[in-house]
Amino acid sequence: MRRIVVALGGNALVRAGQRGTAEEQQANVDLTSRQLAELVACGYELVITHGNGPQVGNLLVKNELAREVVPAVPLHWCVAQTQATIGFMIQQSLGYEFERLGLSRVVATLVTRTEVSPHDPAWLDPTKPIGLYQPEERARAIMAATGQVWKPQGSRGWRRVVPSPEPVTIVDRQAIEQLISDGVIVVACGGGGIPVVRRPDGRYEGVEAVIDKDLAAALLARELEADMLLILTDVPNVILHYGTPEAQPLKRVTVSDLRRYQFEGHFAAGSMGPKVEAAIRFVDRHSGRCAVIAALEHARDAVEGRSGTHVVAD
Amino acid sequence: MRRIVVALGGNALVRAGQRGTAEEQQANVDLTSRQLAELVACGYELVITHGNGPQVGNLLVKNELAREVVPAVPLHWCVAQTQATIGFMIQQSLGYEFERLGLSRVVATLVTRTEVSPHDPAWLDPTKPIGLYQPEERARAIMAATGQVWKPQGSRGWRRVVPSPEPVTIVDRQAIEQLISDGVIVVACGGGGIPVVRRPDGRYEGVEAVIDKDLAAALLARELEADMLLILTDVPNVILHYGTPEAQPLKRVTVSDLRRYQFEGHFAAGSMGPKVEAAIRFVDRHSGRCAVIAALEHARDAVEGRSGTHVVAD
Repeated sequence: MRRIVVALGGNALVRAGQRGTAEEQQANVDLTSRQLAELVACGYELVITHGNGPQVGNLLVKNELAREVVPAVPLHWCVAQTQATIGFMIQQSLGYEFERLGLSRVVATLVTRTEVSPHDPAWLDPTKPIGLYQPEERARAIMAATGQVWKPQGSRGWRRVVPSPEPVTIVDRQAIEQLISDGVIVVACGGGGIPVVRRPDGRYEGVEAVIDKDLAAALLARELEADMLLILTDVPNVILHYGTPEAQPLKRVTVSDLRRYQFEGHFAAGSMGPKVEAAIRFVDRHSGRCAVIAALEHARDAVEGRSGTHVVAD
Repeated sequence: MRRIVVALGGNALVRAGQRGTAEEQQANVDLTSRQLAELVACGYELVITHGNGPQVGNLLVKNELAREVVPAVPLHWCVAQTQATIGFMIQQSLGYEFERLGLSRVVATLVTRTEVSPHDPAWLDPTKPIGLYQPEERARAIMAATGQVWKPQGSRGWRRVVPSPEPVTIVDRQAIEQLISDGVIVVACGGGGIPVVRRPDGRYEGVEAVIDKDLAAALLARELEADMLLILTDVPNVILHYGTPEAQPLKRVTVSDLRRYQFEGHFAAGSMGPKVEAAIRFVDRHSGRCAVIAALEHARDAVEGRSGTHVVAD
């Protein structure tokens, strides 16, 4: 059986223009789950991971607004919280799709920690904006009160920035593997995983950071020895010269060609950049592996080679 | 190997007088985990479940205070969120205890749904108070705006009340069992589980309720065919004539004697009542089963018969 790690982008959960109510998110997850159930029906073994940007943003806002009444919780707790709610939604709708298809499969959500290094250079330069935009004055007041770092983000104001260190290892890999080997569809490593560092005495400790969910998905796929990393997003292909008259979608590309395009600056840091980097890292020199970046609604066609950008070893 | 379902009471997480900061909760969980690690070291197979009252309360407060800025999430999402954060804390400290003891064991947290019936009489009479106290005027305004039910709770004001239906089945039992059979220590069914009803078309739907964590623990223990249900709380025994000069701790009691004491009104509804009911339901007529209600700090002595109230079949 072919093992696929599926990374769901933000659009699988909250669409542009939505506030992200529970009902909106569940409806989006329902659409996503139909695609995923089809893959399971085709005999693929799935591990599902997902982003959590808007959800973590909302939790941070709640933290701030309620700070005087109930204790604010650390950022890594917020990541944990989104793993549970998004995993729950996926279980609800994927379970239902299996029921409709007459498939007797179990879907489970695992709280997942991802180890990062305390020596990662990202700690020195927080770059990942999260949460609400605020006017400069308010942002400066929050910085003074909490020690958080906020930076100007163009015309919409200032935003909190946090480090985005490299994922080093999936701490809870073994539990994920046990469930997979029992035929369970696992939702894991949501939002890139709860970031933890390993102390010299062996204890893990949560840290104030967020891990890029595509890079974590690539790591997860490598650690699980998946055959495919399927990154589902809102565009059907990786595109060269994006947004220009020379725009050219990539159908099939080797790791070294993709690396060259990356060096040439074709991919935006906040959007296609990490997806391309994740695809490259997963495939690397492994001829048996394939990374696919495709539109959410083409999941099955993408897996079967009829859609998306397929990244293969040289 | 003897299988024990351990139900951790609120004091394992937030102590009297604490606000429930992340640091306070983690420190409490660390103490709890030392007890649990000892049981694992003794060769017992553990499944850990826990309450979440203060944590859900805090999330509801955040929901209310941020309602105008970000969408409030349903109560059952809040339950899911507490499963992740509490499970995470247990994984952090129990994993560390195993490391110190040289035990190579995996701890995993599963998001867990518990089915309730849409016909449960509890829907007609919400009784479980959750979240902040508010003055009557404010409570009435919230009721009018949201459709929530609030009720007077003595001198401290009004509080939201929600239904507390009977747990019918643990929806995610299979995943829990798979992990146990692979030797994993599982944290599951936190806060009684995310309450869901099964629609006629087979789809599960989250509902606005909370499930008693002790009753859910008893159900979990029955469904997992555990040998023991260990309910850890802040008192060393079940006590007859509690708070009077005739107070008498129970060391060993049969189900039918305990049922009689229950009818006689010895156990308070909000505290010892559900623990006693859970113990009775788990043991029932099974001579191979034992339920133990004991103090957190006596966990090992309780399992080995030297502490706590032991409930056995007639």
